[in-house]
Amino acid sequence: MQLTLKQGERIEDLGRKGYRIIQNKNAFCFGSDAVLLSSFASVKPGEKVLDIGTGTGIIPILMEAKNNCGSYVGLDIQKSSIEMAVRSVALNGLEDKIQMQCLDVKEAAEFFGAASFQVVTTNPPYMTQHHGITNPEEPKAIARHELKCSLEDILENASKVLKEHGRFYMVHRPFRLAEIMCKCVKYKLEPKRIRFVHARVDKEPTMVLIECLKGGKSRVTIEPPLILYNDGASSVYTEEVREMYGLEPEK
Amino acid sequence: MQLTLKQGERIEDLGRKGYRIIQNKNAFCFGSDAVLLSSFASVKPGEKVLDIGTGTGIIPILMEAKNNCGSYVGLDIQKSSIEMAVRSVALNGLEDKIQMQCLDVKEAAEFFGAASFQVVTTNPPYMTQHHGITNPEEPKAIARHELKCSLEDILENASKVLKEHGRFYMVHRPFRLAEIMCKCVKYKLEPKRIRFVHARVDKEPTMVLIECLKGGKSRVTIEPPLILYNDGASSVYTEEVREMYGLEPEK
Repeated sequence: MQLTLKQGERIEDLGRKGYRIIQNKNAFCFGSDAVLLSSFASVKPGEKVLDIGTGTGIIPILMEAKNNCGSYVGLDIQKSSIEMAVRSVALNGLEDKIQMQCLDVKEAAEFFGAASFQVVTTNPPYMTQHHGITNPEEPKAIARHELKCSLEDILENASKVLKEHGRFYMVHRPFRLAEIMCKCVKYKLEPKRIRFVHARVDKEPTMVLIECLKGGKSRVTIEPPLILYNDGASSVYTEEVREMYGLEPEK
Repeated sequence: MQLTLKQGERIEDLGRKGYRIIQNKNAFCFGSDAVLLSSFASVKPGEKVLDIGTGTGIIPILMEAKNNCGSYVGLDIQKSSIEMAVRSVALNGLEDKIQMQCLDVKEAAEFFGAASFQVVTTNPPYMTQHHGITNPEEPKAIARHELKCSLEDILENASKVLKEHGRFYMVHRPFRLAEIMCKCVKYKLEPKRIRFVHARVDKEPTMVLIECLKGGKSRVTIEPPLILYNDGASSVYTEEVREMYGLEPEK
């Protein structure tokens, strides 16, 4: 296809099935959060997946690459993100597998129908507080802070669009763990798997990966810690993380 | 003092200040849970500490040894435990620092007064289910299963006896984490520090250590994992754990 990049945009290779993605340095660019969540989550053949706050569309594109199955909808309230994500889907020829929809998550159940997805994924805004934000309409601010929707909005509406025993996958910051647990349970999203992500084994985790089961019983597995870097001074990814990034094993 | 041991009892050296403890092989013997919780918790001079479900009295005795301050009350519903714990307190000459009280936790606020402790510690029964129990009056069954009190009973009553901004320390099983978080928050015990205990870095945690602040704001620190054993085939404690056990550094 003929590809036109806008000002500030670049194309990044995803190291999976030759897929690429368009990002804009002036907007929110995907980070390791999205890559790790895409590996933590799983999709089975025939399942419909909704990604809430899809941004560049990185999570549906990576999950399609890794699972080779499923159909995906990426939802974002920001028109500029959806417009760019649509071009990334086309760039990879994934139009029949991934749709993008500009929508407020609070309208998702009405738009798609209640209990219409087997899987929901989300890499939501992490920050509740609004200080330090000079322009609350700025795309990066909307992606990072709960300006357009709160954690509770996401959980409430994820639960609505999920079928009974559907799976909910989220990456978030560990400092909000207690609030996350309580609100997940409130909306019948029962935590079943939790994995903390540490730069090194002797450091506090910087991310937490969570899988919930809609309508599940109360019993959760805490998985072994996910360690990003090998011991030593240099920042060399562990083998497990290199595999998640689609990198060749370290020699 | 003249010490008389009953049938099945033995004396164990605690590796701290020469303190010793009486245990009975027919009752619940303390495990690494109690040792790790005693290191995770802290007490400041002048603080009053209540240990709920004290069993042998291991937690007050170890905490007095490690902190060299505070006054302690150990509470247990089992008369046989309290009777043995009283003898351990006397064995160490700690009668002016540690009291033992045979009491149902549900009567603690009435007995001691509401908001009367700065610190509560507990190593409660981990199991909710009653299957496999042939005799629900058996001491080990009462220590391991929620026969005489539930997690909710402990949290509700810990909150009652704690002063505002008092600290609650608990060791529990990770599979109940979501339920623990929700019920702590329900009783105004806000999780502030969580540490998972793993035999090895690539294994799921077997224990979780939790510190809550009564009336605290919602923000929790997940600490680096506590790893029990060094890499390799042999079961050699890590330096951090050796120190917690009062053992000499490995050569």
